[in-house]
Amino acid sequence: MKCRKCGGLAVVNMRQHRLGLCREHFLDWFVGQTERFIEKYSMFHPGDRILLAVSGGKDSLALWDVLLQLGHDVRALYINLGINGQGYSEESKARVERFAADREGADFQVMDVPQAYGKSVPELASERWGRKICSLCGLVKRHIMNRVAYEAGFTAVATGHNLDDEAAVLFQNVLHWQTGYLARQAPVLPSIHPRLARKVKPFFRFYERDTAAYALLQGIDYVYDECPHAEGATTIFYKELLNQLEARSRGAKQQFYLSFLQARQEVGLFSQPGEELELGECEKCGQPTTAPGLCAFCRLWEMS
Amino acid sequence: MKCRKCGGLAVVNMRQHRLGLCREHFLDWFVGQTERFIEKYSMFHPGDRILLAVSGGKDSLALWDVLLQLGHDVRALYINLGINGQGYSEESKARVERFAADREGADFQVMDVPQAYGKSVPELASERWGRKICSLCGLVKRHIMNRVAYEAGFTAVATGHNLDDEAAVLFQNVLHWQTGYLARQAPVLPSIHPRLARKVKPFFRFYERDTAAYALLQGIDYVYDECPHAEGATTIFYKELLNQLEARSRGAKQQFYLSFLQARQEVGLFSQPGEELELGECEKCGQPTTAPGLCAFCRLWEMS
Repeated sequence: MKCRKCGGLAVVNMRQHRLGLCREHFLDWFVGQTERFIEKYSMFHPGDRILLAVSGGKDSLALWDVLLQLGHDVRALYINLGINGQGYSEESKARVERFAADREGADFQVMDVPQAYGKSVPELASERWGRKICSLCGLVKRHIMNRVAYEAGFTAVATGHNLDDEAAVLFQNVLHWQTGYLARQAPVLPSIHPRLARKVKPFFRFYERDTAAYALLQGIDYVYDECPHAEGATTIFYKELLNQLEARSRGAKQQFYLSFLQARQEVGLFSQPGEELELGECEKCGQPTTAPGLCAFCRLWEMS
Repeated sequence: MKCRKCGGLAVVNMRQHRLGLCREHFLDWFVGQTERFIEKYSMFHPGDRILLAVSGGKDSLALWDVLLQLGHDVRALYINLGINGQGYSEESKARVERFAADREGADFQVMDVPQAYGKSVPELASERWGRKICSLCGLVKRHIMNRVAYEAGFTAVATGHNLDDEAAVLFQNVLHWQTGYLARQAPVLPSIHPRLARKVKPFFRFYERDTAAYALLQGIDYVYDECPHAEGATTIFYKELLNQLEARSRGAKQQFYLSFLQARQEVGLFSQPGEELELGECEKCGQPTTAPGLCAFCRLWEMS
């Protein structure tokens, strides 16, 4: 296959776009597309200070790389969850540090959960959590992102979620017809409380294959392995089902997610007036919560 | 596994209900459940005359069997589509005739498409239809069912759709966010025009496995083979994906469909005021249609 721009050998073939590109033109295209999505969906506003959640994986490091290229005011936040006797978390952190060392202006901070709270997330899970650890991990990460963003005055929180991530979550929400979640799943979540920064997902239209291709071709050294706790995770299973769909019908994943956004916008799907969230503030940390008294995060540590 | 009712050997194990039953208790349970669903969803009204679409397959013959047992006023309609040089259609018709011969009060009529219109559905498809033949076949069957029901004064049209059928269609509609279809997919569709009888699906809560078990254990001789044109059909592919889901998570298919019905009822999902259908009447056959002039069915034959 030939690069559509220069006729050279295409190294990336995006079947969903019927587009093949050589290394150089793919890297250009990828950065340009991210810029287009950021504008199209009004992700950032003038004067925004962006906090980017980085895990050491391909998506978040690629997004960091692209946001720096686009000249955004961005700081990365690495949350050390203390996974696998620190092994997995330390490996991941090392990639983040290496990335930052190689790039001018790559500013980052670390939030160390075991240090700050006295326990790793797996330790907490084994004591207090009846469900799959992934949901606890998500809770902890959301809380810390919101809190760090608020305390340091960031106006937007960015994450590296790609289309496969978003489609898998949509699939999960649809299988259970979780109308509340379906109302709030979006590439941009406006701030609905002074302590909650806007949330944006600039990569939400890229297939996972393509963010991986960007990271590889851009020479980013990232953690290949999934988190050891993710094995058998439902989200991974849903991604596999969606990939079967995609294999049968090119662009199916993309259509599933984009037609959802379109239907929600056009016919007001899922935006029922009765569904508004009522947010109070946690008695301990002050972060917004729908629960009375303590937020879910503070309740976790209180109990243990 | 033991029968929950009598402790004998269970021959049917319905994992989604955590229920195993012996032959006799399964047959009882199945008929009783159908009766419950008919009541719960107000499928039939007093004095209803029911037209039942039968194909010769397990679902429609099992439904015929159950409706007769329950004492409903039902007549079956077999539509001969002229499939596979008549071979498949003739085989299917033979099963319908045999079923009727074996049961008292099993009244049926045949509508022969090649005889009435001069062409089989495959012939029509090869001349006039760019898409998969299944959608043409659906159009022809719906038209004929509606028309026969109206002309002979039936007040309800019943079909043998099971939960796997309904979940696969729901899945398809969700993948493309077809909000109009999502608004109208239901176990009971009330009559919205004097020429359109109520449509009901009394088996919509049974898994396909269980309607097959009923037909087998009840000794119904049905056509095992799928229609030769269905090979590779998207619906079959969707059913396979949903079966993977079910294998991972017992009851997943059922939850997907039932939580959809519940969400639609509770939060008014998909029932947008702007989505009402405007129905005119076909200039040729008089059947209701959203198209101006001729309905889709009459247009087909006009063009050929």
